[in-house]
Amino acid sequence: MNTHVKLEDLEVGYDVPALPGMDEADIQTPCLILDLDALERNVKKMGDYAKAHGMRHRAHGKMHKSVDVLKLQMELGGAVGVCCQKVSEAEVFARAGIKEILVSNQVRDMAKIDRLAQLPKRGSEIIVCVDDVDNVADLSAAAQKHGTDLGVFIEIDCGAGRCGVTTTEAVVEIGKAVRDAKNLTFKGIQAYQGAMQHMDSFEDRQAKLDAAIAQVKDGIDGLKAEGIECDLVSGGGTGSYYFESNSGVYNELQCGSYAFMDADYGRILDKDGKRIDDGEWENAFFILTQVMSHVKADKAIVDAGLKAQSIDSGLPFIYGRDDVEYIKCSDEHGVVADPKGVLKVGEKLKLVPGHCDPTANVHDWYVGVRNGKVETVWPISARGKAY
Amino acid sequence: MNTHVKLEDLEVGYDVPALPGMDEADIQTPCLILDLDALERNVKKMGDYAKAHGMRHRAHGKMHKSVDVLKLQMELGGAVGVCCQKVSEAEVFARAGIKEILVSNQVRDMAKIDRLAQLPKRGSEIIVCVDDVDNVADLSAAAQKHGTDLGVFIEIDCGAGRCGVTTTEAVVEIGKAVRDAKNLTFKGIQAYQGAMQHMDSFEDRQAKLDAAIAQVKDGIDGLKAEGIECDLVSGGGTGSYYFESNSGVYNELQCGSYAFMDADYGRILDKDGKRIDDGEWENAFFILTQVMSHVKADKAIVDAGLKAQSIDSGLPFIYGRDDVEYIKCSDEHGVVADPKGVLKVGEKLKLVPGHCDPTANVHDWYVGVRNGKVETVWPISARGKAY
Repeated sequence: MNTHVKLEDLEVGYDVPALPGMDEADIQTPCLILDLDALERNVKKMGDYAKAHGMRHRAHGKMHKSVDVLKLQMELGGAVGVCCQKVSEAEVFARAGIKEILVSNQVRDMAKIDRLAQLPKRGSEIIVCVDDVDNVADLSAAAQKHGTDLGVFIEIDCGAGRCGVTTTEAVVEIGKAVRDAKNLTFKGIQAYQGAMQHMDSFEDRQAKLDAAIAQVKDGIDGLKAEGIECDLVSGGGTGSYYFESNSGVYNELQCGSYAFMDADYGRILDKDGKRIDDGEWENAFFILTQVMSHVKADKAIVDAGLKAQSIDSGLPFIYGRDDVEYIKCSDEHGVVADPKGVLKVGEKLKLVPGHCDPTANVHDWYVGVRNGKVETVWPISARGKAY
Repeated sequence: MNTHVKLEDLEVGYDVPALPGMDEADIQTPCLILDLDALERNVKKMGDYAKAHGMRHRAHGKMHKSVDVLKLQMELGGAVGVCCQKVSEAEVFARAGIKEILVSNQVRDMAKIDRLAQLPKRGSEIIVCVDDVDNVADLSAAAQKHGTDLGVFIEIDCGAGRCGVTTTEAVVEIGKAVRDAKNLTFKGIQAYQGAMQHMDSFEDRQAKLDAAIAQVKDGIDGLKAEGIECDLVSGGGTGSYYFESNSGVYNELQCGSYAFMDADYGRILDKDGKRIDDGEWENAFFILTQVMSHVKADKAIVDAGLKAQSIDSGLPFIYGRDDVEYIKCSDEHGVVADPKGVLKVGEKLKLVPGHCDPTANVHDWYVGVRNGKVETVWPISARGKAY
């Protein structure tokens, strides 16, 4: 029996896995925990890097979906504002008073466009991405209806194969349409190369980014020939930010995962061939899980399965342990190989999930820990805001 | 411009993807929709089957995590109550007044045991699973502390390789300990063969279940030799319920996925070699998604990615369409192959997700539709209740 548990503290019920002031050992599992020291070091490091390279950093809120984490990125890391992917996320960040919000995605549904066009009334500067000239009139009409102004980025597909135009002709066509549209302000270019971020080799990533930079530069030049200037050229992720920062083309970063780290990003290599979770960034983000059954001598069953994480990018690894391994994940359970039978029922383990973004999105709370104590419990404010 | 959209109805903001009374065409994407007619037919069919075979049906709430869906299963499908996997889920169902609640899982953390032992005060009969005799004293102490009674199932691992004992000796040891413990009532056996549910071949599934039934029968006989009777022998899923129902050993089913169906279950074959989503059960559960970009002629980008579903059991299929295919999933986007370029920006598609349970768990709402109208919007009441 774990005598450290303060049962009376937990009678608030099912709504939170921990309360500030509790011992780390008393946190209810499974839940997400943030190592606040590591998080702060990551946040400050990226902020210092961006500042030293003359880059704006608009931190990507789609990763953490948390107003509290964003505020840390702004206060400690000098972030200028937030990127997000959905109007419903932008609404959460606007409600929290964030002034610079980029929806780094297309908004095509008419009801969503109407919601988006209302957000500047809350005092936020809103920028949205466009990859189709047909979208311009709809955005302009909604902004006129609400008496607001929307900023516009043209999204260039520089290799990810998702949204975005692929030719400079299309860039120029949209740029001119935005310039001529009422209540829209042309702000620049969105060019995030999402497909190369997780390539292991630094050189492979660099080759992809070099191609992206050339493509973006061509788009900028095409616009300039029409007298259209780009205030902002925005992109960059945890696997590429040094390329954009030294490109002479980009002036804004959009990094997200660096703050938390995950297993899939951790595996990629820096220019010296070292894993990026071994020096460049620290693991600050964990699923805390507990052994709940150990009937078989060589297998422990833990309480974090598919309802506690996304395994799209592989299984989690167990932080700080090489004697046990998370080998299988089902809805409610993880199977941990324990060949020497070292784990005990009730024992807690810290998992580094395969992919931080969709893992954060299944939880309601971040439990922030420092020096063995729960310091804060932050709501994942935009969790589930997918629409 | 879609003139069907009632913008004024949506100014309630970001909290719901739809409102009752709206046209189905106006639902905000991505979100979960339930075809209420199909859902009701599935629910009634399983209820009728259980009744005809003299089986109790304790519907599995871990799948839908919804008080409203459960109530439909009880009212229309004769379900006697609910199974769930976590104390936090049991708390949600108890708060909703559900009388028979089985936590079909182990509860080992002392704080969770304390919470569990309080639930009978809310008028619910609580049963919990045990696979380790050391757990018995902890459960008994907590029930005594709160002046309540907890029912106990012994969990047998009949092939899933997760929790549960594997020998009749262990069954009997736990049975005797429960019989002799204060404030615990021995109720019977939990034996869910989770590993065979998704095997394609009916005969392969049958062979696995035959072995499980023999193992369970041995456990029951071992208990009987000690004078311990099993009131309930509980198990069965969407891929096996007919085996348990005709076993003469089980008397309670725990099916979940039948009500919604998903792509992974849909692929398994019935005794005639026919997919079970082609007659046995109907697809009632969909992710509604929308085309948000179509810059490349042969690829449409839709707005349902990893934040709208779990792809642990494979990608979703597009319901009712064989001309387009969902081929790639990233955080916020799905890539849909559209070789003939038939899709238009704004067009909506219904996805059948790979795995219903963890997909439901990322959403906050079920939008219930019938005859082209939104009839109801149900909260996913136990969403995120993993601890």
